[in-house]
Amino acid sequence: MKIRIDIRRKEGLSDPEGVTTQRALQNLGYDGVTATHFGRTIYLEMEGDDTGAATAEVEAMCRQLLANPVIEDFQIEVVG
Amino acid sequence: MKIRIDIRRKEGLSDPEGVTTQRALQNLGYDGVTATHFGRTIYLEMEGDDTGAATAEVEAMCRQLLANPVIEDFQIEVVG
Repeated sequence: MKIRIDIRRKEGLSDPEGVTTQRALQNLGYDGVTATHFGRTIYLEMEGDDTGAATAEVEAMCRQLLANPVIEDFQIEVVG
Repeated sequence: MKIRIDIRRKEGLSDPEGVTTQRALQNLGYDGVTATHFGRTIYLEMEGDDTGAATAEVEAMCRQLLANPVIEDFQIEVVG
């Protein structure tokens, strides 16, 4: 089973990488970009067919290791 | 218009972050995870309604600044 985890900073927290990149895009002439935010993605391959159990297990992994729930939101999706 | 860019290392290239994370997951008892890969995601907000033109412009941004086409693949999706 393939799982994708999208991890983003919570709304309202500063995103210096996004701010810097947006400035760089504007310097390159891409004026139509009004906001830029960064996130990270983790792709897991897991044994088993029970998507409910896998999603619950991945949520535990996120809270314990993969994400920082204090400043990040994460979204788990079974993709294959 | 909201755009999501998924950037991943090309297949076959080493992913030390993924290897280390997988080992950590196994040390924590998550034995069902057979592969772990990392990617990054960039979310853009852009002016205009022409999704074709926007996608082409974002592809140019990726080649010029956002991704490293030598070692990374990227996928552009209009999400809103």
